[in-house]
Amino acid sequence: MQGTAERADIERVVREVVLGHLRPAAVARAAPSPLVVNVSARHMHVCQTDLDRLFGPGHELTPLRPLYQKGHFAAEETVTLVGPKRRLISNLRILGPPRSATQVELAFSDAVALGLEDVPIRLSGDVKGSAGGYVLGPNGMIEMKEGIIRAALHVHMGPADAEFYGVRHKDMMRLRVGGPAGLVFERVLVRVDPSFRLEVHMDTDEANACGLHLTKDVELLKAGGPSPRQEESER
Amino acid sequence: MQGTAERADIERVVREVVLGHLRPAAVARAAPSPLVVNVSARHMHVCQTDLDRLFGPGHELTPLRPLYQKGHFAAEETVTLVGPKRRLISNLRILGPPRSATQVELAFSDAVALGLEDVPIRLSGDVKGSAGGYVLGPNGMIEMKEGIIRAALHVHMGPADAEFYGVRHKDMMRLRVGGPAGLVFERVLVRVDPSFRLEVHMDTDEANACGLHLTKDVELLKAGGPSPRQEESER
Repeated sequence: MQGTAERADIERVVREVVLGHLRPAAVARAAPSPLVVNVSARHMHVCQTDLDRLFGPGHELTPLRPLYQKGHFAAEETVTLVGPKRRLISNLRILGPPRSATQVELAFSDAVALGLEDVPIRLSGDVKGSAGGYVLGPNGMIEMKEGIIRAALHVHMGPADAEFYGVRHKDMMRLRVGGPAGLVFERVLVRVDPSFRLEVHMDTDEANACGLHLTKDVELLKAGGPSPRQEESER
Repeated sequence: MQGTAERADIERVVREVVLGHLRPAAVARAAPSPLVVNVSARHMHVCQTDLDRLFGPGHELTPLRPLYQKGHFAAEETVTLVGPKRRLISNLRILGPPRSATQVELAFSDAVALGLEDVPIRLSGDVKGSAGGYVLGPNGMIEMKEGIIRAALHVHMGPADAEFYGVRHKDMMRLRVGGPAGLVFERVLVRVDPSFRLEVHMDTDEANACGLHLTKDVELLKAGGPSPRQEESER
């Protein structure tokens, strides 16, 4: 009995050790997509009605370069944005294709430069009660009563990526950025759509603060999940 | 016996409850100082030799307003900083008193605006091999061969605060910022000096990224310490 018990114990320990080592590799599903983090400089989305006013009736945007999300592009067309103190942002680029509603996305530093003090942080499309301004194009001017926001830090993903990360549309995730200005963004909004490719969009303030150009060490983490790797306490 | 045991049990429970509630307040040392987080806009520190060249021999800085650290002040004097592509930053404010070496502290967004591509993240005073430029004052011009840095996010503290947080000079800490753009800065450099008041200094990019003006929920944490409070996974 003693010998049998020992053998059972050993078998159990071996099984635990082997499974313990193999389990992560064997069970973990491979990430469906590489993690891409891109910086969105200030830009404008425009509806066809406003496009007609700014660039002329029936105007169609001319793609300058494609964006990472399929079908999206930076257009050749730019406008001038005028803030409440008649300060300007020139060469504000339009992103296509046209949308159902016109919207301007600024970083807070852009808003400060423009003299706008209350630009809310919003999910794209949620512009009710946001800031307003005037937009000048070669064919005319429009007044935006609202629609100027700072876009909430967000991650686009398709259903397979959402399943991999265990998140749903409008969940919050965390993004750890390493390097010399390392930080963890705690409120990364998840946007799930079958057409989306896995991509984090941050604005220029966020990219500058975390020194994104200085590191490739980025990690997308489920909110409430394990704590990200700790930095050493001295360097 | 039964009555005695019950009474002992009740006494034990009461003792545990009372001590459990009282212990944190009774044992925890009170924080020596309130946590202050201030934003450092781009600025210049200047040595007396450069001050003489820029503003005239023997020039003394005129305090405009005191800063939170004792004896430090924003001066009335400003200069124009010229980058490598002859782009300018006008009205760059000098902070006093004069130092042993001239140094310019920019946010990355300032550096981009100035056309400087390689501004290193450094502890104040550590400028070897950093970026250079020209500085124009009313009395003349100086060439900075180096000395333009992005100041590493840091916290000033005196010895009592250092003891309270369990950190030493040049340790790294974490700063959790709550609110709608919540994030955790993972590399907050500790600067200990008997003259220092407890104060975190972040630059304008960092303040804009974390929406510092939108929240008072800030917390200084020891690196490697307990994970900061998790945000809810949905909002």
